[in-house]
Amino acid sequence: MRLIANRIREVFELYGYGEIITPAFEHLDLLVAKAGEEVVKQIYSFRDKAGRLLGLRFEMTTPIARVIASNPMLPRPVRLYYIQPVWRYEEPQKGRYREFWQAGVELIGAECPEGDAEVVALTVRALQKAGLKGFVVKVNDRELVEGLLEEANVAPSQWVSAMRTIDKLEKRGESYVIQELAKLGLGESGARTLITRLNSLKGSIEVLSQLSSTGSERLNRGVRRLEAILSELKDGYGISNEVVIDATIVRGLDYYTSFVFEVVVPKADVGSVAGGGRYDDLIALVGGPKIPATGMAIGLERLIHAIEAENGAIGDYRVVEAVVIPVDPELRVYAARVAESLRSAGIRTMLEFGTRKLGKALERADKLGVRVAVIVGRSDIEEGVCTVRDMEKRVQERVLLDSVAEKVLSIVKSNLKSD
Amino acid sequence: MRLIANRIREVFELYGYGEIITPAFEHLDLLVAKAGEEVVKQIYSFRDKAGRLLGLRFEMTTPIARVIASNPMLPRPVRLYYIQPVWRYEEPQKGRYREFWQAGVELIGAECPEGDAEVVALTVRALQKAGLKGFVVKVNDRELVEGLLEEANVAPSQWVSAMRTIDKLEKRGESYVIQELAKLGLGESGARTLITRLNSLKGSIEVLSQLSSTGSERLNRGVRRLEAILSELKDGYGISNEVVIDATIVRGLDYYTSFVFEVVVPKADVGSVAGGGRYDDLIALVGGPKIPATGMAIGLERLIHAIEAENGAIGDYRVVEAVVIPVDPELRVYAARVAESLRSAGIRTMLEFGTRKLGKALERADKLGVRVAVIVGRSDIEEGVCTVRDMEKRVQERVLLDSVAEKVLSIVKSNLKSD
Repeated sequence: MRLIANRIREVFELYGYGEIITPAFEHLDLLVAKAGEEVVKQIYSFRDKAGRLLGLRFEMTTPIARVIASNPMLPRPVRLYYIQPVWRYEEPQKGRYREFWQAGVELIGAECPEGDAEVVALTVRALQKAGLKGFVVKVNDRELVEGLLEEANVAPSQWVSAMRTIDKLEKRGESYVIQELAKLGLGESGARTLITRLNSLKGSIEVLSQLSSTGSERLNRGVRRLEAILSELKDGYGISNEVVIDATIVRGLDYYTSFVFEVVVPKADVGSVAGGGRYDDLIALVGGPKIPATGMAIGLERLIHAIEAENGAIGDYRVVEAVVIPVDPELRVYAARVAESLRSAGIRTMLEFGTRKLGKALERADKLGVRVAVIVGRSDIEEGVCTVRDMEKRVQERVLLDSVAEKVLSIVKSNLKSD
Repeated sequence: MRLIANRIREVFELYGYGEIITPAFEHLDLLVAKAGEEVVKQIYSFRDKAGRLLGLRFEMTTPIARVIASNPMLPRPVRLYYIQPVWRYEEPQKGRYREFWQAGVELIGAECPEGDAEVVALTVRALQKAGLKGFVVKVNDRELVEGLLEEANVAPSQWVSAMRTIDKLEKRGESYVIQELAKLGLGESGARTLITRLNSLKGSIEVLSQLSSTGSERLNRGVRRLEAILSELKDGYGISNEVVIDATIVRGLDYYTSFVFEVVVPKADVGSVAGGGRYDDLIALVGGPKIPATGMAIGLERLIHAIEAENGAIGDYRVVEAVVIPVDPELRVYAARVAESLRSAGIRTMLEFGTRKLGKALERADKLGVRVAVIVGRSDIEEGVCTVRDMEKRVQERVLLDSVAEKVLSIVKSNLKSD
């Protein structure tokens, strides 16, 4: 997890995003804002000793929107990222537990499609850097879907319900969704036509041509925005193979206003590993001025599952580079000094306490994947030397104390992996 | 916070510790184990929808002890660290809110005093690396205090209460503590004598000489352990000026069995910034085998307060190194490409969207402390160049696209601060 989180953090910072930390729980009503009833049911809520109703955060966008709402003078666009746990009381699924970690960004104050493109691009780069390969970014625009609902004569007051229903296509299947949509004034044949229409809008940018110019202003706004984002992704970032249009993607949170996307890994059975979109009304809704914004979150456990499905288990972050082993407990002070000198040189060094035999200590170092063992023997102190052993090549040599750190560094560096 | 946390993380890893992540909440009874009644009152607890009584973790040692208890085959000693929030429902104090972050380590499976010395040494190094200067490490041993209670004829069943009372010396004052101790079978004069005795045991290692050889086995064990730790710290790690003995330090958590320490900053009014000790019984208590262990935690908000009290505000982690500014929205695609090339070279780069005037964009970059601005002008595209501006030296030059990343890197590197 740390390895993956660190790689993602690195990409977020490469795009100029700064970390924000928000509290784990807040007043329940402040957490909710415009999340959608489904998700609100999943909040862990409780009363504190003063009787206040609190809840554990179940996503990060609303708490961050509130920070922005109360600091409206921040120079915009504001670029923020987080890597934090959230909590949802739902049935545990593959890669999704009741506590799970999200790594995400919010780009606040950019109205242009280039902002959406930046968020998609850094998502793609972060997933690639984490080691994920076979993923697809499905993009859509809620205004496009709303335009189609408009054409089908669904009243605007029903759009939110319609979106929530369409969002269940993957989970509940088409016939369930058609049945539910039918109740919203569409009738069954209208609902069926709508779903057929949405399903036909999947693929490369050309699928949008069947919509252009014939539709409502709302529909056209959605189409133009998608076209602008896709072209910026292609020409500005060189990202095109990874992205497809899919008009059935609307995302489950009610606060999205136009562009939405999610990332799926066809070969891994874990649901979407990332998702996001534009939420131009949320900051005003939580008490701030109207500020356009777009964001995304990666589900870290799901991502790890997906990477493991591709590559097998993810190698552990190799913490310890060197171990210092006194062959006798009485040499411990001397060994501690040697270890300190290695640490001063920036080498991650573990100290053995001399309580196990040399052979056992070496065996253990091997198991931990430690590259270098520095062995301190009895006669070494007088001679001012110790033995430096390359655990991988299984060779060792006696080295003067002054040059131990240098020697260890040269072995450790010869092993640098590409990351 | 991130800057400080990263520096501390670096030190933990230098000592060969690996990160552990534990859940934010668990079954309430599993969190508590042997924490002490005071602290248990401060747990945020609630029932989930299945009626189970859960609690938010208020410290990390017990949850980690449980992980070890259920994985008794892990090769020992196990070295673990964490940098995580915990929650306590108490009156907010300076540097202590209801959610606060702890950065700590657990060294599990080392019985020798060299283990305690390692934990103290890495605490000292972590605090130094974080930038703290005027701190004092107060060390003590609960067996030493128990030995004195034994001599004063306090029944062993009262020792835990006595410890909790002595722990209040700082907060409630001597007369309160004497009054409370008197009730434990000591009488008032006995209590006064005990406190005088404890107060006389403050200072360098020599203060222990008044105890040696005359006391009980328990007392002597405490004395010998302290002596061994102090001598290892001095000879193995070169740490002696920062450490003093203080027999009134017993720590507030009931699970400590012998060595305890805390770190105070005399000039900053924030309580202790770090503390820890040995807890040889806790892992057995939570269902594992008997495994000796020692650990410590740093309170990050308190540490930051203390550092700020010494140095003024801590500089922000400077995230953005370069900004790419198209002078016109139509140059955005080209600007995005330039930004991507800088990121590929590892430069943290923010992209302007061309929606503000060049002057404004430069002003903003200045405010954010960005070192380099790369300006993309209209004629630049044809000529294959752009303008690289050193914001600090206020000089700029036109550079061929191929060498932009190199040029920006050379400016950013010329500015590397000592950390």
